[in-house]
Amino acid sequence: MSKRNLRDETIELHRKHAGKIEVTSRVDVENQEDLSLVYTPGVADVCKVISEDPNEINTLTARGNMVAVVTDGTAVLGLGDIGPKAAMPVMEGKSILFKKFADVDAFPLCLDTQNVDEIVNIVKALQPSFSGINLEDIAAPRCFEIEERLKKELDIPVFHDDQHGTAIVVLAALYNALRVVKKEHKNVKIVINGAGAAGISIAKLLLTAGYKDITLVSLEGVVSKGEAWLNPAQEKIAEQTNLSGVTGTLGDVIKGADAFIGVSAPAVMKPEHVKAMNADPIVLAMANPLPEIYPEDALEAGAAVVGTGRSDYPNQVNNLLAFPGIFRGALDSNAKDITMEMKVAAAHAIASVITDEELNAEYIIPSALDKRVAPLVAKAVRVTAYQQRKGGRSIS
Amino acid sequence: MSKRNLRDETIELHRKHAGKIEVTSRVDVENQEDLSLVYTPGVADVCKVISEDPNEINTLTARGNMVAVVTDGTAVLGLGDIGPKAAMPVMEGKSILFKKFADVDAFPLCLDTQNVDEIVNIVKALQPSFSGINLEDIAAPRCFEIEERLKKELDIPVFHDDQHGTAIVVLAALYNALRVVKKEHKNVKIVINGAGAAGISIAKLLLTAGYKDITLVSLEGVVSKGEAWLNPAQEKIAEQTNLSGVTGTLGDVIKGADAFIGVSAPAVMKPEHVKAMNADPIVLAMANPLPEIYPEDALEAGAAVVGTGRSDYPNQVNNLLAFPGIFRGALDSNAKDITMEMKVAAAHAIASVITDEELNAEYIIPSALDKRVAPLVAKAVRVTAYQQRKGGRSIS
Repeated sequence: MSKRNLRDETIELHRKHAGKIEVTSRVDVENQEDLSLVYTPGVADVCKVISEDPNEINTLTARGNMVAVVTDGTAVLGLGDIGPKAAMPVMEGKSILFKKFADVDAFPLCLDTQNVDEIVNIVKALQPSFSGINLEDIAAPRCFEIEERLKKELDIPVFHDDQHGTAIVVLAALYNALRVVKKEHKNVKIVINGAGAAGISIAKLLLTAGYKDITLVSLEGVVSKGEAWLNPAQEKIAEQTNLSGVTGTLGDVIKGADAFIGVSAPAVMKPEHVKAMNADPIVLAMANPLPEIYPEDALEAGAAVVGTGRSDYPNQVNNLLAFPGIFRGALDSNAKDITMEMKVAAAHAIASVITDEELNAEYIIPSALDKRVAPLVAKAVRVTAYQQRKGGRSIS
Repeated sequence: MSKRNLRDETIELHRKHAGKIEVTSRVDVENQEDLSLVYTPGVADVCKVISEDPNEINTLTARGNMVAVVTDGTAVLGLGDIGPKAAMPVMEGKSILFKKFADVDAFPLCLDTQNVDEIVNIVKALQPSFSGINLEDIAAPRCFEIEERLKKELDIPVFHDDQHGTAIVVLAALYNALRVVKKEHKNVKIVINGAGAAGISIAKLLLTAGYKDITLVSLEGVVSKGEAWLNPAQEKIAEQTNLSGVTGTLGDVIKGADAFIGVSAPAVMKPEHVKAMNADPIVLAMANPLPEIYPEDALEAGAAVVGTGRSDYPNQVNNLLAFPGIFRGALDSNAKDITMEMKVAAAHAIASVITDEELNAEYIIPSALDKRVAPLVAKAVRVTAYQQRKGGRSIS
């Protein structure tokens, strides 16, 4: 399908259906008796039950399976701050993927405010209607504060997919790539190019999963303690990364690295960078749609395993592998939070779909459409939730 | 079905389905091509179209057909302030009735705040996600201020169903009752018992529809200019009602009345009140579930036509006859507001379903389940919207 055709076809599809979601009924309303049961006067008894025990809302209404997909439209795909209305097609897309892949009911809420307090207050006030909050396409650094505050102030799971979804799939990809090149995760040196929301979230998750040697690189240079240009989030991650205190640029840290993880900009990874890496280098170049380095160029320069964000190359890092199963598992276990341990468990579940026999350099990540993934992720999250509830510990 | 059985059955139904609504997909996502069209990368082009022309959101997303059913849970059915969670079964019920009767997608939002400013700000911020707002079960007097402010500050229709839905169906019932008793609406004397949100809204709509002689009675007594106990809404309506300035109680104003409209409390209408009315009196006793006077008692006392809010007697005044068609018509005509003229037109559409041949004292209101009603109401609202846009006038 040519680019021109894709544009026409996708707009045509959206226009024909007038959007992608609808709110439908699970019950019949054909006669007076039905009406008495689903509406008045019968419904009053259902209200009374919830009034006496508010937890019953999750068994007697759709709230127990309902997630809000919340955006302010400030960082939509690669399009940037296009506003809440223009963000709706993405949020509807997300909603139907929740339903199709994990039977989670998800409803898009595009908010006409960029004020952090207002967004937090709105989502808090909506808590009686939802059992989970998926934050989406909210620009940094507001996305950090919004998520952090909501995680503290709500007792339902809050998950900013742009940060954590990518991180989870990257962890899965890295896990399987290391299986291919037969390296131990504790010993590998990792360079993350991009020190925004996604890069920092990846670094945090890799640290939780036991990776030791991680260095981030931003547009300003290598993230290193004491650099004047660090923002608060970068200052914090600098405490746990770049332990040898390298300064400079990508060229300075890529030497001897085992894995390059790019969440940055097109074409910033050069063949000579790949050549400077350790033996059997892993390259995950996820700038989208134009990667940091094209797979054919990375392979020619000696990369052992390559992944991108694109569906037309092998090994696509796609959030769709994570978010439906994550929320399915969190809802099913009545989790109050999506913890770091759940995210690590989810990543291992994604990776586990590929058997030793199937695993190869061109197949380290399952297809985004692989229906086996979400149930496995859900189970991993659920089991972790139960373990953590028993153990009483969690890193959120 | 006994009362005990209804309770068990309705709770069982809600538990079995885990609620009454779900968010489903209008499109397929089976392969990579589907995914490219409904999500990334294709969806970016749909976002761009809306970014360039925000009106396109209503043709390219489900927003054009999406109504929020908003409550704070402070006046739920007859249960009062049971909170936003316990209100959810009613809001879900409303949502499925919107869908079943008028193919309007409606989503329940139960808000955990009773602060007027907060509710107004939340609903305003949600405007990119909805094309209409149905306010529901919000206690007076906050419901007036919330609706008034939202009507001013939003450019999508806002409709407090508890006020206007009942008023529209009462107007329809009165229209047909007058056909039965062969009286002219300009000449009849009407007593509205109950001067809260519903009573005042009924009075306003009847005035718009050309009724002249209306008197309201509250718990404190007859609503009459200058009474010390009038609240602001009552003060305002006192300017246009009770033109002869009667004071006292129901017993004082019911004498010679042609119609009694009760939105008050059980058993407050006595047989002697009915006997004191004009010839062929009309009694709409809508306190629910226990009416101001039972139909058999009203008829025995001489009432010519009787209606209630109950489904087990003839002539049930049920909001379901109004709200689905009202919003269907408003959405289809891209109306910015639901005007008084639209409400009058909707009432006449409801009444018109019953032909002269069919009309009789026990059939002045169509069944709440009559599928012919919503399309007729929608058409009446649509036509009125077009006329008002042409004429540039409206009373909202």
